[in-house]
Amino acid sequence: MRPQAGVEDVQRVCAKIEALGFRAHPMPGAQRTAIGVTGNPGPIEPAEFESLPGVAEAIRVSKPYKLVSREVKSEDSLIRVGPPQGSPNGGPGSAGASPAPTIPRPDQPESGRAGATPALPGFIVGGRELAIIAGPCAIESREQALEAAERVKKAGARLFRGGAFKPRTSPYSFQGLGKEGLEILAEVRRATGLLIVTETIDPENCDLVEEYADVLQVGARNMQNFSLLKRVGRSRKPVLLKRGMSATLEEFLMAAEYVLAEGNYNVILCERGVRTFADHTRNTLDLSVIPAVKRLSHLPILVDPSHGTGKRDKVIPLSRAAVAVGADGLIVEVHPHPDRALSDGYQSLHPEQFEALMGEITAIARVIGRTTAHAVA
Amino acid sequence: MRPQAGVEDVQRVCAKIEALGFRAHPMPGAQRTAIGVTGNPGPIEPAEFESLPGVAEAIRVSKPYKLVSREVKSEDSLIRVGPPQGSPNGGPGSAGASPAPTIPRPDQPESGRAGATPALPGFIVGGRELAIIAGPCAIESREQALEAAERVKKAGARLFRGGAFKPRTSPYSFQGLGKEGLEILAEVRRATGLLIVTETIDPENCDLVEEYADVLQVGARNMQNFSLLKRVGRSRKPVLLKRGMSATLEEFLMAAEYVLAEGNYNVILCERGVRTFADHTRNTLDLSVIPAVKRLSHLPILVDPSHGTGKRDKVIPLSRAAVAVGADGLIVEVHPHPDRALSDGYQSLHPEQFEALMGEITAIARVIGRTTAHAVA
Amino acid sequence: MRPQAGVEDVQRVCAKIEALGFRAHPMPGAQRTAIGVTGNPGPIEPAEFESLPGVAEAIRVSKPYKLVSREVKSEDSLIRVGPPQGSPNGGPGSAGASPAPTIPRPDQPESGRAGATPALPGFIVGGRELAIIAGPCAIESREQALEAAERVKKAGARLFRGGAFKPRTSPYSFQGLGKEGLEILAEVRRATGLLIVTETIDPENCDLVEEYADVLQVGARNMQNFSLLKRVGRSRKPVLLKRGMSATLEEFLMAAEYVLAEGNYNVILCERGVRTFADHTRNTLDLSVIPAVKRLSHLPILVDPSHGTGKRDKVIPLSRAAVAVGADGLIVEVHPHPDRALSDGYQSLHPEQFEALMGEITAIARVIGRTTAHAVA
Amino acid sequence: MRPQAGVEDVQRVCAKIEALGFRAHPMPGAQRTAIGVTGNPGPIEPAEFESLPGVAEAIRVSKPYKLVSREVKSEDSLIRVGPPQGSPNGGPGSAGASPAPTIPRPDQPESGRAGATPALPGFIVGGRELAIIAGPCAIESREQALEAAERVKKAGARLFRGGAFKPRTSPYSFQGLGKEGLEILAEVRRATGLLIVTETIDPENCDLVEEYADVLQVGARNMQNFSLLKRVGRSRKPVLLKRGMSATLEEFLMAAEYVLAEGNYNVILCERGVRTFADHTRNTLDLSVIPAVKRLSHLPILVDPSHGTGKRDKVIPLSRAAVAVGADGLIVEVHPHPDRALSDGYQSLHPEQFEALMGEITAIARVIGRTTAHAVA
Repeated sequence: MRPQAGVEDVQRVCAKIEALGFRAHPMPGAQRTAIGVTGNPGPIEPAEFESLPGVAEAIRVSKPYKLVSREVKSEDSLIRVGPPQGSPNGGPGSAGASPAPTIPRPDQPESGRAGATPALPGFIVGGRELAIIAGPCAIESREQALEAAERVKKAGARLFRGGAFKPRTSPYSFQGLGKEGLEILAEVRRATGLLIVTETIDPENCDLVEEYADVLQVGARNMQNFSLLKRVGRSRKPVLLKRGMSATLEEFLMAAEYVLAEGNYNVILCERGVRTFADHTRNTLDLSVIPAVKRLSHLPILVDPSHGTGKRDKVIPLSRAAVAVGADGLIVEVHPHPDRALSDGYQSLHPEQFEALMGEITAIARVIGRTTAHAVA
Repeated sequence: MRPQAGVEDVQRVCAKIEALGFRAHPMPGAQRTAIGVTGNPGPIEPAEFESLPGVAEAIRVSKPYKLVSREVKSEDSLIRVGPPQGSPNGGPGSAGASPAPTIPRPDQPESGRAGATPALPGFIVGGRELAIIAGPCAIESREQALEAAERVKKAGARLFRGGAFKPRTSPYSFQGLGKEGLEILAEVRRATGLLIVTETIDPENCDLVEEYADVLQVGARNMQNFSLLKRVGRSRKPVLLKRGMSATLEEFLMAAEYVLAEGNYNVILCERGVRTFADHTRNTLDLSVIPAVKRLSHLPILVDPSHGTGKRDKVIPLSRAAVAVGADGLIVEVHPHPDRALSDGYQSLHPEQFEALMGEITAIARVIGRTTAHAVA
Repeated sequence: MRPQAGVEDVQRVCAKIEALGFRAHPMPGAQRTAIGVTGNPGPIEPAEFESLPGVAEAIRVSKPYKLVSREVKSEDSLIRVGPPQGSPNGGPGSAGASPAPTIPRPDQPESGRAGATPALPGFIVGGRELAIIAGPCAIESREQALEAAERVKKAGARLFRGGAFKPRTSPYSFQGLGKEGLEILAEVRRATGLLIVTETIDPENCDLVEEYADVLQVGARNMQNFSLLKRVGRSRKPVLLKRGMSATLEEFLMAAEYVLAEGNYNVILCERGVRTFADHTRNTLDLSVIPAVKRLSHLPILVDPSHGTGKRDKVIPLSRAAVAVGADGLIVEVHPHPDRALSDGYQSLHPEQFEALMGEITAIARVIGRTTAHAVA
Repeated sequence: MRPQAGVEDVQRVCAKIEALGFRAHPMPGAQRTAIGVTGNPGPIEPAEFESLPGVAEAIRVSKPYKLVSREVKSEDSLIRVGPPQGSPNGGPGSAGASPAPTIPRPDQPESGRAGATPALPGFIVGGRELAIIAGPCAIESREQALEAAERVKKAGARLFRGGAFKPRTSPYSFQGLGKEGLEILAEVRRATGLLIVTETIDPENCDLVEEYADVLQVGARNMQNFSLLKRVGRSRKPVLLKRGMSATLEEFLMAAEYVLAEGNYNVILCERGVRTFADHTRNTLDLSVIPAVKRLSHLPILVDPSHGTGKRDKVIPLSRAAVAVGADGLIVEVHPHPDRALSDGYQSLHPEQFEALMGEITAIARVIGRTTAHAVA
């Protein structure tokens, strides 16, 4: 759409698309709104749309992924996390009512890199401020979660991670506290204002998780769990989609496409290491995928240096590298007492290490024109 | 348990295990019954069980996987597919009522490699006769399915494969006929007597699929979809579990352990190629995993040379190799008209190629003491 | 060239090629002679050659590899190992005088799959009889080598392997006996009639090794040691070229092309496993490369199940699979006392295991129309 | 050795080691000298050395690699490149006479991170200033080389790369200008003062290359060409050793150990990407190997983002990441006219892109306490 196109122009085009039996996907940007069209069994004539008021151009997407492609939307996507502006910091009920940005609001431009950071408790992923998500691998107790949250918040994290439902390689390993873990996460949000990122492990489970989470995490092992992708695609909450451990870039973007194709355009990608022959780290962190994603897609992408390396002493240097390469943020495991962690303790940072990390990445971020909430003298 | 232990001995041990707050997993074998114990928060004293009547020995399993291990059960598992002996060839209703072999029947030894092959329509996977599963990638129509089934049956296949629910990399690709596909599969069974292997893609979907399938297939992308593994673990139907495309052997066995830990001991493993740098085939078929599994586990393992190579002209030589290496069978894509296939046509065999394949593998099978249902002059 | 083309026809075409400033590579086959042309800075007009007597057709090779391609030579290459027919079983001197088959002899057709096996001591690799190369990883002593040789010969091996110069990961590991090892190998040949396959590790070392070896082995780590490839390309001895541990098929064929481009057309390829994430074997044996090579190249290809798996108990099943998939032979580590081996003992077979292996693969070979020298009751 | 140990103390210990039939490897550091002992067929009693004057402690190295290990030498190695201090900027003759720093000079501490950068034309790799090596993939002509050299020097490079002997996958690709290329490199040094890094491809070739080069490069394909490693181990020139494309960290360090074991302690490691299934870059750059090497070894390590990604637009972001992760420098392909390059043009930077790169990495370097020679406003 043209920059000056109004809401009614967008609606008119969407109506026409739907009338033709297709599906319309309006995706607002800072400058202009893009409208993706899917569901077409055969080719459509682009010219049919170019004559409508407000339409800048109609193009055929050459890639197998469509809605995630920069061909459809050339501007970086800004993903709003948390309650909508003006609403109170919600519990389960109000959080579930958070409206998905499915209606273009070109007259209310979202704040971009050059714009102002929104007031708490919302947060924009993909903007100038790096999204720093930190917390323990698994929620183990109220005390552990709150202590971790206070520490990471103080160091500058704006989002809190912690698993209530844990996909574990062994059926005999700790599988998470389940609903009790979600209740603790809600308490963390109330107590600290941190936004909550937690994993959903299957479509049915998603009904429960989305009542509590601000961001629905889809784990690497579920990157091609298409039933789950479709389910989170029908959610109103943003989705953090981790790259599968042997996923090509195209498969990664196709997984995201599943979510967008269902109408949820708020997908945050995350590189977390791939599986190779190399044995000095648990996985091989593939930082080259960051500029590769940026070239092909408008979606933001984070890096998980904890799973990406699997070793505590590699987390800080790889976090610096992730920020330097251009990632939109980090998701880092921090545990108040890593040696007592019920899972992944060997790759979790001590809180003071996380503070050091925040200091280092904040300095790197400044060099490339980005910021964090970490206070720097 | 000792070979001469009776049903009541097994039940007594199971009762004691349950009374201690653990879970008992009786797994009958041709010679004797093994009973796995899981759910133990701390170590149990093996001696406590060894004094019970019928107990041969109590051991602690040293591997992270327990029930799938040869340490628990040293004999090869024989997995019965299809309605129980004596029952009519069931439709959805009766098939769902097929009793799971959770009660040891040492007095009714299942036929093993040295024993007689059971009468149709049942089939034993892991016995002397190779399990040959063939059919199209996806069920596309009644005509396509029936034509494929007649052709593969004539060549000696005893089980029919065909996807009704297809996990596809792209949300815009053909996703299968769904329930209509299952109905067609039921008709194939009625018309041909072939047993049905078809994929289930999520826990909810499993409710439907298990009404129709004789074997529930869990695809490679879902190998660590633990919700699905737990769900099929509560099914009474055998499970065909495909190795994930970057799964280590330990992860593969741990995924099977999830199914057994829920009480379904009828798991058939399947190697289908792993992801490597090599680009002359779609995946790199790892045949060394067959003897590696045989060493560690009592479960049978098949090979999928179609996905394992992704190229039609590689399917026959790799099928010969799979049989020669000691696999318990094959799952092969055969389409009556590969060039018109809606998915995976380039790796599907023509029916006459499948007949040639059956001839070649039957000759190889004979050399290593195994058989197929393919008629050899 | 046409089947009926005579020596003078071939020479005339070669002369014309050389006159144009290119290089001619005449490669005789059972039915007809192919002539490769390299060194052309620009395109040549095929028609310029097609008018010469005896020329069947002139084609432009579409692949990056030329002389190894089936486009240049459609028939399987038969690689003669050992002294030429009629000459005595040579020591170093006479072996070095073995003429390279650079001159086409269409009137003296080499024996092919359908033909008679040549009299000892020569051997044809790529013919009906599988090439079975066996022996210890490293030559450790005269006694060890002779004992190993007697045992493998008795079981049906026709070629003996044993390293005199060993490329080892650690500079502190046993690096081989050097020239003394070569002298022992010459004694093995005199004592047993087995042909000698041994590794050359650099261009200078090749001067010495080619005095003793019947086949020059280039190891996996040297697959892209282009100086060594060029050097063995100027040798008159056949070359056994092992696939690098992360070489694509194209790189593998390009490495062979280096040898042929120097004028040595007697290259035997060898798959020995590639490096992947899988950890249940030392390398992942990629048997699909056998039919892939057969499709693209006329060169024979063997399989090394010892390095390919790195575990003794996997060698026999993978050897069966290698023969079943269509390999032209095997190179297997056999040590009279594996537990005392100075290198690779854990993957070396005991002599009695090798005999069992020969029995099994001989039975498999017969099924696919091939033979071994193993006596079968 | 103790910090206050003198030259004669070191010599006394070395003499004792040699007298016992072993080999002594004195490696000076800023604070103290380490002496490695190799060649011991059996264990030595550490106490035998601890009583000698100046010995701080004698330890047994637990790793398979010894001399490269931090257990032998805990301080970072500083590798001096170029003519010794005080000597004129040499041509081939004098450069060949450059003395290797095999004699400890604890009284003349080399400048370290905290110390002053030495005057041109020498350069210290591993010190505070990042080693920036830039230039074309291959030397194509005098003009091309000089133009590239002037441009990269102006942007802050201190060392010049350019291949005279090129290992190429195809025998028909441009293989480098050979000796003529080396002459051009000598001219580049005379004209610009840049130090020369160029590849040696086999032991014989090394005789020629070391007459011209300031640093001998061993390419990734030759990382386990042990004959070449031994040959450069006997050179007096520093060695740039690239990681093989499927080398584990241990194999990489073992390859370096080959060089040190021959007496050349001046090894600079280089990560250049490893081979994985990922296809969005030519190789997968494994930046986690930098902190992993730093933990285990005292040797400096650079990153090659050009081969590591194989795509021009990924070179700058990955260069930033490499500096941020803690690499000691970069080796980057820069061509004055990439589109006309005879090799690797698609991954070579334009000179203006290299200037941009230098600006970005200089800013990142400053954050982590390092510098470059790039002028920053």
